[in-house]
Amino acid sequence: MWKVSPTRLEDMCTAIMRAAGAPGSDARLVADHLVDNDIIGHHSHGVIRLWDYVEWAHHGDLIPGARPRIFSETRTTARIDGNWNFGQVVATFATGLAIEKARAAGISVVTIRRVKHIGRLGRYAEQVAAEGLVSMLFTNGGGHGINQAPFRGTERKLCSNPLAMSVPSSLAGPFLLDMATSVAAEGKVRVYRARGAPTPAGWILDSDGNPSTDPEDFAEGGALLPVGGSEGHKGYALAFMVELLAGVMSGGGISGDPGRSFSNDSMVIVIDPELFVPMAELRERSLTLTEHLKDTRLADESQPVLYPGEKEAEARLANRERDIELPDPVRQQLLAMLQRFSLPEAELVSSG
Amino acid sequence: MWKVSPTRLEDMCTAIMRAAGAPGSDARLVADHLVDNDIIGHHSHGVIRLWDYVEWAHHGDLIPGARPRIFSETRTTARIDGNWNFGQVVATFATGLAIEKARAAGISVVTIRRVKHIGRLGRYAEQVAAEGLVSMLFTNGGGHGINQAPFRGTERKLCSNPLAMSVPSSLAGPFLLDMATSVAAEGKVRVYRARGAPTPAGWILDSDGNPSTDPEDFAEGGALLPVGGSEGHKGYALAFMVELLAGVMSGGGISGDPGRSFSNDSMVIVIDPELFVPMAELRERSLTLTEHLKDTRLADESQPVLYPGEKEAEARLANRERDIELPDPVRQQLLAMLQRFSLPEAELVSSG
Repeated sequence: MWKVSPTRLEDMCTAIMRAAGAPGSDARLVADHLVDNDIIGHHSHGVIRLWDYVEWAHHGDLIPGARPRIFSETRTTARIDGNWNFGQVVATFATGLAIEKARAAGISVVTIRRVKHIGRLGRYAEQVAAEGLVSMLFTNGGGHGINQAPFRGTERKLCSNPLAMSVPSSLAGPFLLDMATSVAAEGKVRVYRARGAPTPAGWILDSDGNPSTDPEDFAEGGALLPVGGSEGHKGYALAFMVELLAGVMSGGGISGDPGRSFSNDSMVIVIDPELFVPMAELRERSLTLTEHLKDTRLADESQPVLYPGEKEAEARLANRERDIELPDPVRQQLLAMLQRFSLPEAELVSSG
Repeated sequence: MWKVSPTRLEDMCTAIMRAAGAPGSDARLVADHLVDNDIIGHHSHGVIRLWDYVEWAHHGDLIPGARPRIFSETRTTARIDGNWNFGQVVATFATGLAIEKARAAGISVVTIRRVKHIGRLGRYAEQVAAEGLVSMLFTNGGGHGINQAPFRGTERKLCSNPLAMSVPSSLAGPFLLDMATSVAAEGKVRVYRARGAPTPAGWILDSDGNPSTDPEDFAEGGALLPVGGSEGHKGYALAFMVELLAGVMSGGGISGDPGRSFSNDSMVIVIDPELFVPMAELRERSLTLTEHLKDTRLADESQPVLYPGEKEAEARLANRERDIELPDPVRQQLLAMLQRFSLPEAELVSSG
């Protein structure tokens, strides 16, 4: 394992993206998102992703510095073309626009298309909650990143199509739902594979459509199942609606009619809760709800009931000032990228 | 079993509700909702519910004829107090108002509180889809109807907190998601109990918190689990967000701070999709998606991949003109209610 301070890691990532063509502020924003995911333990969405971004930029699939374009808007709505810039840049811009419109009009809905990987969807839900507003977000893969079987099917046909929701709270973090509609995100299967450990029963099928617990079977063309097990029609129905909201409504790519390349086409809805309930009442009553739910007899005394988002919020508080531990291959990747752009390696090498 | 035509069943239900104090148009609307649920096979939300409604009205928990009151509104939002009328009357009114506002402003959000059982949530999603619009609905029990355990907990703490979404389609019915956030709705457990059959593994806990497949254990104070099995944190997070959106934001009752009596407090969001994509393109591309997903290798050749809402749409087409078959106890209940209000029993008795 490699230990590195969040600040130094962010500086390295920023330098690499600047060298790959991103303006300084965009590079800094993407680096902040990636490092924050490592801080809260969502390493599958951490700096490990930077390699792909740089490769995409090299091949012209990602266009650093391209400005998102609003190609139509009303008081409550906007359609954004990301022009294939970093997803984090486009989604942050789109979320900001949705926040502005919801502040003025009470509620807003913004779609984005032609946008690379936007990272952890919950990040934009947090962006909205930090403004005292309520969010709902839906994202597909633009007809790419296909890894999930429809309910009753045994082949990959859908992306993991996540959704997120947030409501402001008076706790360490906002109330935050952020879930793949597949039983688990693909990144989690990769973690089991890297460990050489079997995946839990009910997660994956092999390429012949048989239930499997061997992550290699997934890697070799198997499929993730929708969340819900025997009630997987619920996860599948959620994945289907996400495809309609994020893909069809954005004018982006969909399963069966994909766009040019992987694109996290999305829909962002923002609501001003204070048109419904004063913020003090919202905070107080949602705290009552949280305390009431935590006061529950437990299946396992060491596993308390959490509010949605508690894990991320507590991890951020606990780890913010600490060094991040990353596997050595991630360090090797960063080193290779620094070398590629003839950037100084001293800091990276000396930090081992 | 008792066979009865949908029209006659609806007339009987209407007569009973009128006798219980409902204006003719309200009685007809509620009867139509109940009978439609029996037509599409959702008997747990069918005329079997009428007994409770009449009892509630008798005890003053439901106030037939009370008008829903808009106690604040903007161009895009409204807060509605149902004044404890039939939930179907209040939710149909609220959905209609949300439709009107979304047509004018692009998107709208309406909350309702102090409202009895609204029935099948998908019905309002269908109401929106029939107008060529997109919907999202969230409903709790106003702090009553508590039957679901939080993830990691072993006691009832939440209602089954359903959510629904719809998008218009060119198929037999709209794309329609309508799901309890518990692994199954309570009504489904009742069906197993009535049959004396065990519930599937992973649905319920007994009152001591142990996993069970005996529906009696649930009836005696056990709990429904959130959807997702080992990934039940997803179902629980959805249930939690529904409690915030439908309960806290409506100013209604919540788990830990319940209202006066059971109330299907709700949030309705309506979006005009034509601000994003022409209706012809929406219909065509969502059909492409549907056909692409149906063209999947199946786990069981007799169980095809469906689009969300297909089951309900096909059942409605197949059964619309047919007699409905209901268990004899439902007939006995209707008879008792006719007698209670000194209504003519001839039709009911002769239809056996």
